[in-house]
Amino acid sequence: MAAKGNNVLATRAEPKVFKALAKTKKFPKARYEEAAKAIVLEQKKLPISKTALPIVTAGTSDLPVAAEAKVTAEIMGQRTEVICDVGVAGIHRLFGHLKKLQKANVIIVIAGMEGALASVVGGLVSCPVIAVPTSVGYGSNFKGLAALLTMLNSCAAGVTVVNIDNGFSAAVTATLINRKIEEGK
Amino acid sequence: MAAKGNNVLATRAEPKVFKALAKTKKFPKARYEEAAKAIVLEQKKLPISKTALPIVTAGTSDLPVAAEAKVTAEIMGQRTEVICDVGVAGIHRLFGHLKKLQKANVIIVIAGMEGALASVVGGLVSCPVIAVPTSVGYGSNFKGLAALLTMLNSCAAGVTVVNIDNGFSAAVTATLINRKIEEGK
Amino acid sequence: MAAKGNNVLATRAEPKVFKALAKTKKFPKARYEEAAKAIVLEQKKLPISKTALPIVTAGTSDLPVAAEAKVTAEIMGQRTEVICDVGVAGIHRLFGHLKKLQKANVIIVIAGMEGALASVVGGLVSCPVIAVPTSVGYGSNFKGLAALLTMLNSCAAGVTVVNIDNGFSAAVTATLINRKIEEGK
Amino acid sequence: MAAKGNNVLATRAEPKVFKALAKTKKFPKARYEEAAKAIVLEQKKLPISKTALPIVTAGTSDLPVAAEAKVTAEIMGQRTEVICDVGVAGIHRLFGHLKKLQKANVIIVIAGMEGALASVVGGLVSCPVIAVPTSVGYGSNFKGLAALLTMLNSCAAGVTVVNIDNGFSAAVTATLINRKIEEGK
Amino acid sequence: MAAKGNNVLATRAEPKVFKALAKTKKFPKARYEEAAKAIVLEQKKLPISKTALPIVTAGTSDLPVAAEAKVTAEIMGQRTEVICDVGVAGIHRLFGHLKKLQKANVIIVIAGMEGALASVVGGLVSCPVIAVPTSVGYGSNFKGLAALLTMLNSCAAGVTVVNIDNGFSAAVTATLINRKIEEGK
Amino acid sequence: MAAKGNNVLATRAEPKVFKALAKTKKFPKARYEEAAKAIVLEQKKLPISKTALPIVTAGTSDLPVAAEAKVTAEIMGQRTEVICDVGVAGIHRLFGHLKKLQKANVIIVIAGMEGALASVVGGLVSCPVIAVPTSVGYGSNFKGLAALLTMLNSCAAGVTVVNIDNGFSAAVTATLINRKIEEGK
Amino acid sequence: MAAKGNNVLATRAEPKVFKALAKTKKFPKARYEEAAKAIVLEQKKLPISKTALPIVTAGTSDLPVAAEAKVTAEIMGQRTEVICDVGVAGIHRLFGHLKKLQKANVIIVIAGMEGALASVVGGLVSCPVIAVPTSVGYGSNFKGLAALLTMLNSCAAGVTVVNIDNGFSAAVTATLINRKIEEGK
Amino acid sequence: MAAKGNNVLATRAEPKVFKALAKTKKFPKARYEEAAKAIVLEQKKLPISKTALPIVTAGTSDLPVAAEAKVTAEIMGQRTEVICDVGVAGIHRLFGHLKKLQKANVIIVIAGMEGALASVVGGLVSCPVIAVPTSVGYGSNFKGLAALLTMLNSCAAGVTVVNIDNGFSAAVTATLINRKIEEGK
Repeated sequence: MAAKGNNVLATRAEPKVFKALAKTKKFPKARYEEAAKAIVLEQKKLPISKTALPIVTAGTSDLPVAAEAKVTAEIMGQRTEVICDVGVAGIHRLFGHLKKLQKANVIIVIAGMEGALASVVGGLVSCPVIAVPTSVGYGSNFKGLAALLTMLNSCAAGVTVVNIDNGFSAAVTATLINRKIEEGK
Repeated sequence: MAAKGNNVLATRAEPKVFKALAKTKKFPKARYEEAAKAIVLEQKKLPISKTALPIVTAGTSDLPVAAEAKVTAEIMGQRTEVICDVGVAGIHRLFGHLKKLQKANVIIVIAGMEGALASVVGGLVSCPVIAVPTSVGYGSNFKGLAALLTMLNSCAAGVTVVNIDNGFSAAVTATLINRKIEEGK
Repeated sequence: MAAKGNNVLATRAEPKVFKALAKTKKFPKARYEEAAKAIVLEQKKLPISKTALPIVTAGTSDLPVAAEAKVTAEIMGQRTEVICDVGVAGIHRLFGHLKKLQKANVIIVIAGMEGALASVVGGLVSCPVIAVPTSVGYGSNFKGLAALLTMLNSCAAGVTVVNIDNGFSAAVTATLINRKIEEGK
Repeated sequence: MAAKGNNVLATRAEPKVFKALAKTKKFPKARYEEAAKAIVLEQKKLPISKTALPIVTAGTSDLPVAAEAKVTAEIMGQRTEVICDVGVAGIHRLFGHLKKLQKANVIIVIAGMEGALASVVGGLVSCPVIAVPTSVGYGSNFKGLAALLTMLNSCAAGVTVVNIDNGFSAAVTATLINRKIEEGK
Repeated sequence: MAAKGNNVLATRAEPKVFKALAKTKKFPKARYEEAAKAIVLEQKKLPISKTALPIVTAGTSDLPVAAEAKVTAEIMGQRTEVICDVGVAGIHRLFGHLKKLQKANVIIVIAGMEGALASVVGGLVSCPVIAVPTSVGYGSNFKGLAALLTMLNSCAAGVTVVNIDNGFSAAVTATLINRKIEEGK
Repeated sequence: MAAKGNNVLATRAEPKVFKALAKTKKFPKARYEEAAKAIVLEQKKLPISKTALPIVTAGTSDLPVAAEAKVTAEIMGQRTEVICDVGVAGIHRLFGHLKKLQKANVIIVIAGMEGALASVVGGLVSCPVIAVPTSVGYGSNFKGLAALLTMLNSCAAGVTVVNIDNGFSAAVTATLINRKIEEGK
Repeated sequence: MAAKGNNVLATRAEPKVFKALAKTKKFPKARYEEAAKAIVLEQKKLPISKTALPIVTAGTSDLPVAAEAKVTAEIMGQRTEVICDVGVAGIHRLFGHLKKLQKANVIIVIAGMEGALASVVGGLVSCPVIAVPTSVGYGSNFKGLAALLTMLNSCAAGVTVVNIDNGFSAAVTATLINRKIEEGK
Repeated sequence: MAAKGNNVLATRAEPKVFKALAKTKKFPKARYEEAAKAIVLEQKKLPISKTALPIVTAGTSDLPVAAEAKVTAEIMGQRTEVICDVGVAGIHRLFGHLKKLQKANVIIVIAGMEGALASVVGGLVSCPVIAVPTSVGYGSNFKGLAALLTMLNSCAAGVTVVNIDNGFSAAVTATLINRKIEEGK
């Protein structure tokens, strides 16, 4: 893929993988995004989207998944805006961002623990919401299963779900949607 | 129990059970609460609580469990106020009841589907919240398991949980708490 | 909702519910969609979409869920095209529809049993795919759990998932996406 | 939070986290509670409760969770009394504490393995019992799941449950209840 | 088996099965034990055991399983004594039977809901306890799974477990043990 | 316990725990059983049983659990005979031990993987069989769950089950049974 | 399919489905196999296999699945020999059939409850064994899950598994294998 | 086994196990297959099969399991051909190998993530397919469970399944089948 001059993204890469890669000196333009645990090789700049994709997280522990979503979207040319720590236990913090959310074409919501944020956001906006359960939590969270089930059972229509911690797939889908909307048809 | 002149409550009783009981003419004061599927034999009036217990439900499908909680609390002398259909997909409806909730000594929150309402309420009040997951839902709801896990993983402190559809136990606990608070110590 | 002159859709309604409704003669324009088990009250025609939404099913047993998706999309003004019985065990049947799929803005894929169709379609197109696992199957299918897990673990990016048998939510999301694309931004 | 002069509690903190914090010398009053794995920054003394909160554990392996509950309650001004190793396999040990338990306003019961202690205590007292399943056990204990299910299915009314190992949430709830009772209403 | 003159026991037999059998008039000595849902054909009297086998149940809903255990033991010549409704939520009722239990060679404990009775009995006696979880309960009981896990994780040594509702196997095992003890070796 | 002069057994003890204990020089008679991972402090010799308890294992990987059972039985005075590696995939090896098994008062069967050995042994003998599932296996073994379910569903009557890897509890129960049989009644 | 003159097999068909079909008089050659719950339309006789396929069942309750396997194999021209009720609790019955099994090219083993028969047969023969778990059982059998896990974890190499109750797929696979062996290559 | 001059294969062996073995100098012909994590002691050459066994993998992460299958088959004399990275998200890559697959006597398909490849291959060929789910994936993959359920629910007849990551058992079965076919009967 890299040989063809494409942009390449390797998610879930430990720092030592990047170090080994860097030693080879094959891809001098490759960089390591620590928060996202991703290796990014941006060989051509794609056109930048007009609108930003809100990436909303419930807590600070969900940030690594948000970072994966962010770097994935951005290498595809999608501008992003991370809105973090607006989980349902302090729901007033979410309302400060309401206007921004209601103007978006599509929103990514990332939450662990009980994962309730996706339903709340889904009930406040009229655009599609892509929900990412995270493995943040303990005990009966069962490594993200609780948040996953919550999101699948969301009573808000317009919410679809990806695998636990899968910021990558959420970002690809959101970018595809937003790009098509900006292009119109 | 009935012979001792106590109040008796039989939950999860089908109408035909009450009919059979009624035929025996042993308990002429027994009545059937249809919404709650409960047989109630109130033989002595307990002192009525000063404050009302809010019983909050996410959707109309959760009402049978709310009815079970209501009849259980009331036979123990606890006044109740059912606030229904304020689930998180239309969260503004909840905010109309905020003052009432913030003045309560203890609150019961009943929700099926993804069960996110308990976390939201728990984040808005400073009193204990007793969460009742219901078996309302389908597919990956797994007969209430999704709502149960959501509530157990609530990021709002002060939320405790009872078994799926167990309006009875939630009401007993809430009444015990409220009674002690009204009595002071 | 009906009183305000809006279109109303009640999914998962047994025929007898519609019969009871019909007897009241309150909603003479309400009709019953048998395949979808839905009551439809279309009080105002919404503008019809330019492009059709492909609703792809793996087998004929998945058709009730496809019908629910179809009636949901159509009452929102979204044209649909159901492509059925193109499951992966006879994958050549799918290829006959490839062009149509590759021109779509968004696709709904509905599959029970092992639910593999979503991954295959997701690998063939570059638009978002909304995957609906169905409860079709037996034994270790566990009422749709097998198909649900398959779809959540799809190795094709761009695939998001809704609850088991939830044709309604898939259709709402797909229609939101397609409408925004047709409107452009 | 610390900047506002509030009391701050960080649970589930490894010793090295506290060491790093200590090095910064920002919070000289912060201390580390080893048994509870908690960092405590007590900046203002809250009024001390009149009555003590019994924290009952089934076995000595449950003590870390009891310690978390204890430090949480105490930083909120709630006096505690830990009664430990009174599990159901040696139930006579529990009976030695019966009077104390029957006078309490609210009780925390912490148990791993089969978690049966909550039901037994719940049957002996008439105040609310907050049950904390712990991940103590092996094999079919499934990291606390066995104890969690036991507690959720308790046949004793008045028992509510928090997440596995969640001494923090149990203590917050118990303190809220006890404080309101002492204040009366 | 019947042709050889042996005693025959058919458990889990609906009344209509017995009726059909009775019509054939092949086994005039066969009788139907309604509480146990068992068809019993006792063709030869086995020697009766000297000591009785205590069959202890937590609640009245567990009685069908107790009945299955009782009829199974008795057709093997084992005397039984059913002690019922002594569940842990009212543990004082159990203590009234303590002497009897402490003299037994082996005890069967039958419990649904949270199944805690097996641990409590196991802690009070020094003989083997055979625990039978029942499917009595609802919600997160998962048809006996909660009680099964409780019993498998019992902290009392000497407790072994059979399948959910399997009064038959518990009775066979207990009878084998008691018979060998009475015979000595 | 040790202070009273009793025999003490600590199972699941890592070598370093014993080393720390040895350093204290408090219990010079304590020894470490490496295969069983148990610390044994035998302060008084109990009378030795007349008959030996067969401890049967399916594979060599099950030996640590067999060792725990062996050391537990022996400290209680119960002689044992370990018969190992006679799993069902080479069932002829089992038949070489048949006579010995058929003369036993009670048998412990230890098996991981699919755990089928308990059923086979149970069908060949007429004494009680105590089945111990082990966590030996991988993939869909789910850490012993497969063997546990196999044993609980055994079609051979007389088989009871303990928790995964719980050689201790199996040995206690078997010893109690054998001791009572040898004493007679 | 029927129109092309092929043999057609519809499994899992209730009698009323066949009755409805029969009324249409479209397929006068169609017959209903009651034990297998299958509609069979044999329009051309396929060449009959030289060797018979052993279909081995653990208990009589497994016979419907054996019947489905038998009718499936036979319509494909594969001769079958059903060997039934040779489950592991009475393993001597199996040994009476050993020679026959050891001469087979491939064997189908069908078992519910704990499903141990597949491992035992797999250890006795050197040909492939196709294992079919059945939903026969109760309680912790979880509708065939116990047998399924047993078979997947078989310690005998050469055992592969199909879905619960899937006699059809086992028969198709076994027939494919046997046909190719008889044809040689 | 080694002493008898047989070929010996030890799978799931860490390198250090082989190093320890090598130090003993007992088996100078033993070699370590790193990709397969297997120790191979080939003491006699078995006759080589005429036809090759296709071992098909969905992704490169599945290669260790493919390596285990390959080394297992080859030590039994079965030639193999590994076809890798032809997963369903890029299904055109699979079609390049179609002819080869359609000529095979039996095929092994190895896939993690959603495991859909087995169904697709099963639908394209008319020989038996042995499916191996792998533990490759994360989140709701649950260590191979998702792929396992997918394969068990395959709508393509002729697909049978082995345990997660069990390349060994798949290879033994496939080799048995192919050998018998080549020998004919």
